[in-house]
Amino acid sequence: MAFQGKKLINNPDDVVTEFIEGLVETYPGLQYLDGFPEVKVVIRADASGATYDKVAVISGGGSGHEPAHAGFVGEGMLTASICGDVFASPSVDSILAGIRAVTGPMGCLLIVMNYTGDRLNFGLAAEQARSEGYKIEMVIVGDDCALPPLLGIAGRRGLAGTIFVNKIAGAAAAAGLSLADVAAEAKRASQMVGTMGVALSVCTLPGQVTSDRLGPGKMELGLGIHGEPGAAVADLQPVDVVVSHVLKQILSSETNYVPITRGNRVVLMINGLGATPVMELMIAAGKTVPKLQLEFGLAVERVYTGSFMTSLDMAGFSISIMKADQTLLQRLDAPTKAPHWPVGSAGNRPPAKIPVPLPPSRSTKSEESLSRPLQLSEQGRILEAAIEAAVNAVIVMRDSLNDWDSKVGDGDCGSTMYSGATAILDDMKKYS
Amino acid sequence: MAFQGKKLINNPDDVVTEFIEGLVETYPGLQYLDGFPEVKVVIRADASGATYDKVAVISGGGSGHEPAHAGFVGEGMLTASICGDVFASPSVDSILAGIRAVTGPMGCLLIVMNYTGDRLNFGLAAEQARSEGYKIEMVIVGDDCALPPLLGIAGRRGLAGTIFVNKIAGAAAAAGLSLADVAAEAKRASQMVGTMGVALSVCTLPGQVTSDRLGPGKMELGLGIHGEPGAAVADLQPVDVVVSHVLKQILSSETNYVPITRGNRVVLMINGLGATPVMELMIAAGKTVPKLQLEFGLAVERVYTGSFMTSLDMAGFSISIMKADQTLLQRLDAPTKAPHWPVGSAGNRPPAKIPVPLPPSRSTKSEESLSRPLQLSEQGRILEAAIEAAVNAVIVMRDSLNDWDSKVGDGDCGSTMYSGATAILDDMKKYS
Repeated sequence: MAFQGKKLINNPDDVVTEFIEGLVETYPGLQYLDGFPEVKVVIRADASGATYDKVAVISGGGSGHEPAHAGFVGEGMLTASICGDVFASPSVDSILAGIRAVTGPMGCLLIVMNYTGDRLNFGLAAEQARSEGYKIEMVIVGDDCALPPLLGIAGRRGLAGTIFVNKIAGAAAAAGLSLADVAAEAKRASQMVGTMGVALSVCTLPGQVTSDRLGPGKMELGLGIHGEPGAAVADLQPVDVVVSHVLKQILSSETNYVPITRGNRVVLMINGLGATPVMELMIAAGKTVPKLQLEFGLAVERVYTGSFMTSLDMAGFSISIMKADQTLLQRLDAPTKAPHWPVGSAGNRPPAKIPVPLPPSRSTKSEESLSRPLQLSEQGRILEAAIEAAVNAVIVMRDSLNDWDSKVGDGDCGSTMYSGATAILDDMKKYS
Repeated sequence: MAFQGKKLINNPDDVVTEFIEGLVETYPGLQYLDGFPEVKVVIRADASGATYDKVAVISGGGSGHEPAHAGFVGEGMLTASICGDVFASPSVDSILAGIRAVTGPMGCLLIVMNYTGDRLNFGLAAEQARSEGYKIEMVIVGDDCALPPLLGIAGRRGLAGTIFVNKIAGAAAAAGLSLADVAAEAKRASQMVGTMGVALSVCTLPGQVTSDRLGPGKMELGLGIHGEPGAAVADLQPVDVVVSHVLKQILSSETNYVPITRGNRVVLMINGLGATPVMELMIAAGKTVPKLQLEFGLAVERVYTGSFMTSLDMAGFSISIMKADQTLLQRLDAPTKAPHWPVGSAGNRPPAKIPVPLPPSRSTKSEESLSRPLQLSEQGRILEAAIEAAVNAVIVMRDSLNDWDSKVGDGDCGSTMYSGATAILDDMKKYS
């Protein structure tokens, strides 16, 4: 059942430049460099390399992961984002243009996800920029926990954990730290975080045909964010089971991917992959937190739920867990103007629920009015028979009403009326 | 091709309560009333009815539209959100519990979307609350521009424009206005906004089968947010064309749905319907703004792009346009702690793009090194032949490399190498 993927775009070749144009229309704090189509760089409108007195923090990579990374540009997070074509590393020239645009005397940190193309191009751009006199450091993020440690020579892939590294480095830079110190905090953060995902669908590149790799009723575990196949395919399970499996993988003491043990403090990210509704992400978050607390003995200090690092229109989510201490929490909580960094996750947790307020006490009179008189009057008996006939008529029509409603609405009118009618019948029996 | 919809949930009957649990884990500023499953109310953790000294602003309705409305609870926006079951109005008891939990002496405004069930249940709850001594006002929002004005007796449906009304009322309440004044601002806002949507897919209710109503290559215009059929089905068009059509409908002078004419100031919302990636929403935003400016002569003051009022896992978006003046912009820009109100849309717009910074000037020497010597040396001719043979080998292998890459990656390795190889060949011809 391969079919042309449906997308609300124009020419598939223009999706990245048109994305940037819309992003900048939406957020007046952002600008881009006038070098389309080759140079695709989003920068802070208030940071110019000639005068910028903080360490510039730049990330980027292939596009198709929006809002990453361009949506995280803003005071307190990234200074610039370099956007490649969809799933393709940005060119050296584009990266260089971004470095030149925002880097001042304090220097520039490049945060690079661990993919061969990105390491190559960001690395070449860093060399070139150094030869032009810029101070440059580079930190590589590889937070993937899906594959066994020694498989492949490319190492662990960079996934949604990179967003944490961006935030921590951006906050450290905003606090006025030196390039060496910002780079050290970013590197330390990158070693504290592990990520693994689950997908219900395969993403479709703009203008291409959707793969039929994943059949109905199946999910893929340990996916990549570029359409590469996951580590395993399994029957779709309740999200409870999915979350348990993913947590076990990330926190496995065999692979030892993250230095997290019982009693540690952690932060959690539930990251939608592009086509996953907020409802499902929140359900996953609500199930993950108690499991981390009760099954793994961890204190969950912050929860970030949303779509941060996506894979075009893929349905599914990834879970990232990061070991946290006071310094790191301070960096995560520090204010930022980056439009897509989540709001409202900081701070102390009050009790999740409070009692339903009691209604004002009813008078004895109104209590009495709820009970049935010992003997119904003539009119009462007529009314009772009429109500019974009416609700029975509604009960019989359930399927027919559902059918009619499905022509114009959501097809549940009959079921709703049926519930109401049976509740009335039950009430009448209770009091007779 | 109807099939069981794939969702990352547990029991379909529990999606709303589990959503609320996850929401409250994510945002420590929110709490819920301990009355599951009947009472599903999200409230501000810092607002208690006994002491609350501002007008309480409550919205709500059927669930399945997340983050609306629970994600908009927070200082400066909603005081509480009442969550019904998926696509079903909340019960009178649940609404009453919410009113009692947060309403103080200043009273409470109920913002209700124009659906029969919501009007009925919120209206009954308002009557009951008044009889208990609460001051209550109610504003109905019907911003739909898809259907001709006189079709049907239910009136225009409430859509994403409701989010604007929530924000404006919340900001007016936070500013300390009286109930009458907050209600008046909300009512005025509701009369200024029009919305219309386009969908690429039909949403699937949890645990149900996905409808095959919309075939491949088709889109639905003027959709509802409860799976009800759109006003028209058409072949999928480039998003440019889709945007033009939707804008014409909303701003039509025949229906006169919104009091917007040339020269007016407006704000814009591009709202994803649940499964639409940020990339596509931003592309739509980037196309809508210049159309509003150039074709309709409007000044676009703010752009809000994201997924605010969804329809479960529906792919597509709606466009809302609201007439704006200084008061209204002030309310929209006012700070709020509501986690899903978009950040970074306020403020003045600098130029969208700036020039690419020039590289440091190259020395004459390095310029010369780019040109070919008049006569190649013997080694030079050998190197040239070797390069030519290598790039030709790569060019021939394009499809084979793509095929191998598709087993482990995104299937574009051959195409990428082909582009590089042909660029080298072109360069060699240029200089020979």
